[in-house]
Amino acid sequence: MSAYTITYIKNENKKEKPDFDNLAFGKYFTDHMFILDYSEQKEWHNARIVPYKPLQLDPAAIVFHYGQTVFEGLKAYKTKSGDIQLFRPNKNMERLNRSNERMCIPEIDEEFAIEAIKNLVEIDKDWVPDAPGTSLYIRPFIISTEPYLGVSPSSTYQFIIILSPVGAYYEEGINPVRIAVENEFVRAVKGGTGEAKTAGNYASSLKAQEMVSNKGYAQVLWLDGIEKKYIEEVGSMNVFFVINDEVITPELNGSILNGVTRNSVITLLNHWNIPVKERKITMEEIYEYAQNGELKEAFGAGTAAVISPIGELSWNDKKIEINDGKTGKISFDLYETLTGIQYGRDEDIFDWIVKVKF
Amino acid sequence: MSAYTITYIKNENKKEKPDFDNLAFGKYFTDHMFILDYSEQKEWHNARIVPYKPLQLDPAAIVFHYGQTVFEGLKAYKTKSGDIQLFRPNKNMERLNRSNERMCIPEIDEEFAIEAIKNLVEIDKDWVPDAPGTSLYIRPFIISTEPYLGVSPSSTYQFIIILSPVGAYYEEGINPVRIAVENEFVRAVKGGTGEAKTAGNYASSLKAQEMVSNKGYAQVLWLDGIEKKYIEEVGSMNVFFVINDEVITPELNGSILNGVTRNSVITLLNHWNIPVKERKITMEEIYEYAQNGELKEAFGAGTAAVISPIGELSWNDKKIEINDGKTGKISFDLYETLTGIQYGRDEDIFDWIVKVKF
Ligand SMILES: Cc1ncc(COP(=O)(O)O)c(C=O)c1O
Ligand SMILES: Cc1ncc(COP(=O)(O)O)c(C=O)c1O
Repeated sequence: MSAYTITYIKNENKKEKPDFDNLAFGKYFTDHMFILDYSEQKEWHNARIVPYKPLQLDPAAIVFHYGQTVFEGLKAYKTKSGDIQLFRPNKNMERLNRSNERMCIPEIDEEFAIEAIKNLVEIDKDWVPDAPGTSLYIRPFIISTEPYLGVSPSSTYQFIIILSPVGAYYEEGINPVRIAVENEFVRAVKGGTGEAKTAGNYASSLKAQEMVSNKGYAQVLWLDGIEKKYIEEVGSMNVFFVINDEVITPELNGSILNGVTRNSVITLLNHWNIPVKERKITMEEIYEYAQNGELKEAFGAGTAAVISPIGELSWNDKKIEINDGKTGKISFDLYETLTGIQYGRDEDIFDWIVKVKF
Repeated sequence: MSAYTITYIKNENKKEKPDFDNLAFGKYFTDHMFILDYSEQKEWHNARIVPYKPLQLDPAAIVFHYGQTVFEGLKAYKTKSGDIQLFRPNKNMERLNRSNERMCIPEIDEEFAIEAIKNLVEIDKDWVPDAPGTSLYIRPFIISTEPYLGVSPSSTYQFIIILSPVGAYYEEGINPVRIAVENEFVRAVKGGTGEAKTAGNYASSLKAQEMVSNKGYAQVLWLDGIEKKYIEEVGSMNVFFVINDEVITPELNGSILNGVTRNSVITLLNHWNIPVKERKITMEEIYEYAQNGELKEAFGAGTAAVISPIGELSWNDKKIEINDGKTGKISFDLYETLTGIQYGRDEDIFDWIVKVKF
């Protein structure tokens, strides 16, 4: 990538690092960030890595009022030999551009964006934790910056990348969670923005999440917004069910996010000759499978948790216990293999890994 | 209101004012803004009016990523005698709190918020234009400021009010527009955030608006997200139809914004003994009324345009011309009466006006 050069302003006042044994998720940020500006005349320009610091934005900036924004989430993993590697960053950048298209944000150069991530991670490499399960979370995002209160696409943007060292999702090994099926609130609907990774989808999920948390559930299982019948996602993850010897997951229908982990799970299952089907699934069906003893496992799949087994599903006044509330074999194998590839324990047979050179 | 005192830091470097004959909408901002902070310990605190200047926000602030934000829009009008007055600000502040509830944002004190608006408008009173149809647009909004990448409500917020002098919506008198019925994209759905004035609803509308603008239409007419059958809103306005001697408007169903202008229109029609019904309306019905010559007028209603007559509706390959593309009598009377009250030409018989004292 030569269309851009990246200016680098070193942070001379490095922060004290947080306790790497107690990182949690998304609380700490590294010493630097990447910024790329957009204007109609210059298009994307002024690529720079600068000290992590507050953004200065006009109070009328479109992002504050009309939420024209997109984001991505991926991770850098440290291997035993000290290498730092990314998992399928091209998939995230492809999705970023699909989100851009939906949100009327100008396309970015995907290859260059990956270069920018690699550069930034390299500069802040001391922030990549190496305890088991820890990683450096990478958050690329684009915000609309024009100070204008008309409802229309911005004429200026910033593409920003920030980095956050994150703790192990599972403190004590992979562990099933309790999930509540959501019947009132809707995350996304066909014709809306569900397939884009954009702020509004997450804002609209807060209320439902708050309500189920208060009842002791980890996450919401979202149904489709039209008939409240078809299963869509679980929290901020795609969802899979093991029915007898077959794995099923909701098909991409325009309101479901096209997850990178989802795609990787499907690829692995195919590779293992485990039948996997992308299709419409009703909650009714899942309930019946469970009643008949055919529902063997269920799990969420996403970058944060990789695989999150579901031990219990609560649907209206019905409770479905899955695999005695324990992690099933397929869930476990997927978790082990995906994290194995991510952390370099296992061979990268699908060419998913991109090394950060230094 | 005594629970808060408002600190005032005067802007000693006042801006040059823009050409008040050429203001357009939402492009210029006054010398000052109001800010109120929220933290879990102190709740809402530190009310201040300060020079209008960029906000400083951590790049990880929740608003940039998950769009947890709400806003309002109302106007200050200058009367012939030089008074400045607000139109039903209590309605906007009530709605702000309903939006807050949906978006998991802490409630604000409505009376105090109106005090804040009055104070700010008074300080920037030289920015209220007085040419016919011009006004000072008031934009209160709340943004989530906590630097945290977990999907959960913020623990800190800012409530901000900015002011923008705006030109007359109709340069040459009230004028009908062409509207396209949207069949693909959806603005909001039951169970979603359509009833809240929150960023994501507007972000999701950009694409449809862009597509119809390219075809020469002013705005989109939104159908419900479930059956794509029932009429919801038009652009960022509520919509009304005059069928024979009766006026109908979609009932509030959870996905439609509860407009202040909508409420004022209904109140006026009742006062005039013109029958008005809030009910479900299909696009099919409207088409049939038009074919039978029973569709007499159609108009949008919202703070920006007040009343925006619809001269033509395009629905798939069908075109509906309304009232020969001219402004109808009811539309015109509503426009004249509402603006009459707003600008103090007419008596404020419903107690809608709140004066800004100075
Ligand atoms: C709504 C939603 N669904 C699914 C996913 C999973 O996608 P990925 O596997 O790319 O992380 C995410 C992202 O984390 C998400 O936000
Ligand atoms: C989506 C939407 N509908 C309707 C309206 C009209 O509401 P109001 O009359 O309160 O301005 C607005 C606000 O302007 C809006 O954003």
